[in-house]
Amino acid sequence: MKLATIRTADGTRAVRLDGEVLVDLGYADLGELFAEADWRERAAASGATYPVAGADFAPVVPHPSKVVCVGHNYTNHIKEMGRDLPQFPTLFPKFAETLLGAGDDIVKPAETDALDWEVELAVVIGKRVRRADERQAADAIAGFTVMNDISARDWQFRTIEWTQGKIWEATTPVGPYVVTPDEVGGVRPALQVRTVVDGEVRQQDDTGTLLFDPVFLVRYISTVITLRPGDIIATGTPAGVGNARDPKVFLHPGDTVVTEISGLGACVNKVVEA
Amino acid sequence: MKLATIRTADGTRAVRLDGEVLVDLGYADLGELFAEADWRERAAASGATYPVAGADFAPVVPHPSKVVCVGHNYTNHIKEMGRDLPQFPTLFPKFAETLLGAGDDIVKPAETDALDWEVELAVVIGKRVRRADERQAADAIAGFTVMNDISARDWQFRTIEWTQGKIWEATTPVGPYVVTPDEVGGVRPALQVRTVVDGEVRQQDDTGTLLFDPVFLVRYISTVITLRPGDIIATGTPAGVGNARDPKVFLHPGDTVVTEISGLGACVNKVVEA
Repeated sequence: MKLATIRTADGTRAVRLDGEVLVDLGYADLGELFAEADWRERAAASGATYPVAGADFAPVVPHPSKVVCVGHNYTNHIKEMGRDLPQFPTLFPKFAETLLGAGDDIVKPAETDALDWEVELAVVIGKRVRRADERQAADAIAGFTVMNDISARDWQFRTIEWTQGKIWEATTPVGPYVVTPDEVGGVRPALQVRTVVDGEVRQQDDTGTLLFDPVFLVRYISTVITLRPGDIIATGTPAGVGNARDPKVFLHPGDTVVTEISGLGACVNKVVEA
Repeated sequence: MKLATIRTADGTRAVRLDGEVLVDLGYADLGELFAEADWRERAAASGATYPVAGADFAPVVPHPSKVVCVGHNYTNHIKEMGRDLPQFPTLFPKFAETLLGAGDDIVKPAETDALDWEVELAVVIGKRVRRADERQAADAIAGFTVMNDISARDWQFRTIEWTQGKIWEATTPVGPYVVTPDEVGGVRPALQVRTVVDGEVRQQDDTGTLLFDPVFLVRYISTVITLRPGDIIATGTPAGVGNARDPKVFLHPGDTVVTEISGLGACVNKVVEA
């Protein structure tokens, strides 16, 4: 199943993609749907439909209780940088207000000139878990989506903690769909990820090379804190970010940035002036 | 005014301290109260009362949309460490599930043996602000409370990002009261902070020496992201944490840790085995 949250004249709605239409599932958003213990059955329901053409995608979960992001996770990227493989995942946060829909404009804040892209496979949680074992962690994964972990590099590196460069309001597209694991080969999918900026491929890799895979990350993070339905884990980005180029390249008003993952779809976002 | 959220047989309630009693303000918690534009008037209401003796304090705001913490902020501590004064505040997160009430037990997670204390002046937001100017930032401060920014040092330093050592479920006391600025000398109060572990003073300093004061922090953080009523900013801790001692000292089951700030009260928490 491909599930989404769309904006309509009557507010947001949780929907299922069914050919050329989006079927209304009777919930305001996927966060509300995933809060139901039997959401997989409810997601199969019939209902009013909207044409998929021209649909206005909200963040797949507009109000997650938490968004936990991972750094340094693509094996090839770590090796090419000459680093040792880390023993533990590096974690940092985003907040709900930081999220955007898959087709929304990214309004460049006037306070930064170093807005950068990071395509990431994101895990969306479908079940409350704490200290999940292997089976519980796999079962807690509702599905996968695309996140563009937009980062204000100047603010990110003002101090040793990245948080202030990662949480800028309405900068991080996440969507368009939450795709259930059965459609992408399971809970450790090997999918092609890439970023294209104004037609030029900037990042390209395979989620099968993740050092810390989705099930591991659910186990690790849920050791520390409860993961709830609708929570999002972003699994890190491969080589090719603008900040690592020589000279550095950042996003500017007028650019269009496409972050896409095979089987999941793409976020297509235009950068605009504030 | 001294405001709190207490647990009762009928769930949590927002209350005002009035001599020896707590007056019910008609809201489930201070987050709900602060969401009202005229909360200062509503907080003066009369209502049912509860004896303050034996009151069971919840986190002052049980479900903040975000908790933003600051590192490296006490001038004396930075100087004694031989560091230059930083140009920007270091920010990191906590999540709602991380919070505890002022008198709750701290259950030491089995996965860490390096649980450390950090007394902090915390700012509680009373008004939605983005890119606040000086006056707006001052006006957005509902009041101040005590936070013990409990940190699992082993997890904190597993990677370069502190987040995973800072967000452990139900570890961080915040309370007992939100005290309005008029009771403590304004929005940049000079208050004595200290931590006492099993009767021994471990930290002691003055919030008047904060490098980045509460108004500055509201301005800085609201540049990046909207601050909402009930959001919490923890302003950093002074010298004397267990991790900086030689040999290092951590919290163990049986210890009682008191974090207190003059005019605000104290969190008194016993550490217990999981």
